[in-house]
Amino acid sequence: MRHFDQELEQLKVMLFEMASLVETAIFNSVSSVTKKDRALAEDVLAKEARINQMEIEIDDLAIKLLALQQPMAVDLRLIAAALKINNDLERMGDLAVNIAERSIELIQEPVIKPMVDIPHIAALVQSMVRKALDSFVNRDPELAKSVLASDDAVDDLRTASFHELVSFMERTKKNIPQALSLLSVVRNLERIADHATNIAEDVIFYVKGIDVRHHAEVRE
Amino acid sequence: MRHFDQELEQLKVMLFEMASLVETAIFNSVSSVTKKDRALAEDVLAKEARINQMEIEIDDLAIKLLALQQPMAVDLRLIAAALKINNDLERMGDLAVNIAERSIELIQEPVIKPMVDIPHIAALVQSMVRKALDSFVNRDPELAKSVLASDDAVDDLRTASFHELVSFMERTKKNIPQALSLLSVVRNLERIADHATNIAEDVIFYVKGIDVRHHAEVRE
Repeated sequence: MRHFDQELEQLKVMLFEMASLVETAIFNSVSSVTKKDRALAEDVLAKEARINQMEIEIDDLAIKLLALQQPMAVDLRLIAAALKINNDLERMGDLAVNIAERSIELIQEPVIKPMVDIPHIAALVQSMVRKALDSFVNRDPELAKSVLASDDAVDDLRTASFHELVSFMERTKKNIPQALSLLSVVRNLERIADHATNIAEDVIFYVKGIDVRHHAEVRE
Repeated sequence: MRHFDQELEQLKVMLFEMASLVETAIFNSVSSVTKKDRALAEDVLAKEARINQMEIEIDDLAIKLLALQQPMAVDLRLIAAALKINNDLERMGDLAVNIAERSIELIQEPVIKPMVDIPHIAALVQSMVRKALDSFVNRDPELAKSVLASDDAVDDLRTASFHELVSFMERTKKNIPQALSLLSVVRNLERIADHATNIAEDVIFYVKGIDVRHHAEVRE
């Protein structure tokens, strides 16, 4: 194995570790909301620094590979995709931290309703994240395309939960702070779904060399 | 001038054009909210496609430069920074679109108060964006650092306007939809400020080769 191939392999391994940390953070932040479990939220906050550190290490290695080697075609696309996916993963980690912070606010509040549709939205978003990451690991553009197709479903769920939360706020003003925290959880989940979509687009670019960003027609 | 230098120059010119489009979108989306001017919001929506298209063109050129040339040191850092800044700019454009959409909702509502602190927050965020972009154009790391220092001020303004909007919602339920739209404007402005901070960090990396992400001590 050439030294370059070894370093490229190391880049992938680091990105998989980063992805696993971020997936766990998302899972724990959401579970913390639905189970009112403060320890899970605190675990997410405690691991943010590690995710931030990994982002820098992955960027450094990717840039070093670009600088010291002259990667061509598929290797270059892999490194470019790694830089972008790394950035998306770090932001997903930030969004999990936001959810964990909202969760800590919500733990003090009584459970007033079946949590809007948060478990439902969360399950969909987590399956998008998982598929996006699997499509990268397995170089599977068809799986990546299935992530793009889920975007509309997330939008529909978001809109429904928004209306539900507004009517919940209108019922009595005591509900407003709690509804705003839940609204923030939903928005953060929606943004995590956006990043999963970005990753899926990058995987299609990496595998096929086709740029599908902003081309709605590819998304059916 | 070598062909490579010409292409590098072209990359900068395209990034400046992209930056200018995004800055205008932010300015028009915010003015649309404060002046209740629907035409400005529609202008932002109409120009989104151009921003998305430019993002792809800039990425393509940057990746081509990495592939066909063997850029070293400062040139490589410029191309890596261009890829990241391009991504931040495109997302800032999306956030301006979000603000324009909220603005169109708000135009139907009566003006109920001096717009919370939106003009104040907007002015601060726009100055951060301007400084971040100027620091890139002028390769000025000191100016970039001043952007990092503004982050706390944005957080304080955001928190104050959040509390104001909650009490506004609590006053009467008729205020809730309008308050939620204003809250969304504030959140989108805060996220634009985050991207300006990212750009400032990338400029410091590009000029000095120092990675300041996640290093709070550099931010004083």
